[in-house]
Amino acid sequence: MTRPGYGFGRTVASPYGEVVERVRGALKEEGFGVITEIDVKATMNEKLGRDVAPYVILGACNPGYAHQVLEADPELGLFLPCNVIVYEAADGTHVSAVDPEAMIGLSGNQGLAQIAAEVKARLMRVVQRL
Amino acid sequence: MTRPGYGFGRTVASPYGEVVERVRGALKEEGFGVITEIDVKATMNEKLGRDVAPYVILGACNPGYAHQVLEADPELGLFLPCNVIVYEAADGTHVSAVDPEAMIGLSGNQGLAQIAAEVKARLMRVVQRL
Repeated sequence: MTRPGYGFGRTVASPYGEVVERVRGALKEEGFGVITEIDVKATMNEKLGRDVAPYVILGACNPGYAHQVLEADPELGLFLPCNVIVYEAADGTHVSAVDPEAMIGLSGNQGLAQIAAEVKARLMRVVQRL
Repeated sequence: MTRPGYGFGRTVASPYGEVVERVRGALKEEGFGVITEIDVKATMNEKLGRDVAPYVILGACNPGYAHQVLEADPELGLFLPCNVIVYEAADGTHVSAVDPEAMIGLSGNQGLAQIAAEVKARLMRVVQRL
């Protein structure tokens, strides 16, 4: 279920709308609020008149971790919030989360390795428990 | 002004609120809508009772490019929208944008190199023209 490099995810057999709600619940249980939300299907329809499959980008944020990261290096707001995507695929509903360790790795700020690992563990539990 | 690895930015002498408005205008001129917005200062105050300096994370999206990217690889929604951050720093107001080439580089999808370069050029003009 791990996509090496920048994220991890899996495909589940349940319908899109049900999976989105389960993802919201799992994020909450792991201490994340959904601080941004992009309905990609609605946006593409509105802006381009294109019909695409159901797709949402949820911006997950744990304020305590985010505060620590930004205090250490304000530039790291470029990687916040942590995106979790849910979309309808040919074989079910796909869910992926960004890999915080990959993002912190790009920044070269090794002092944040522990926080990145903790946030990653929480996001992996979100994906696993669906 | 380039921060090698994941973003680029600069510090300008004007006040925070004025710079935020200039960034919004420059993004619009370069074809980006602001599709998400996180007032970090307000969020930290509300969620943690912490007082931090003014800071905003703007999620910039050009629907045409976003559509091409997601058609090529739906997983790349993990990197959308392109974040542009503005925050009050000791020596002025700092603006940075994420480097789309770094993000596409992480994904290993070289078929998107041209789009990444075009989006990067637009974001660099946003930062330069402030």
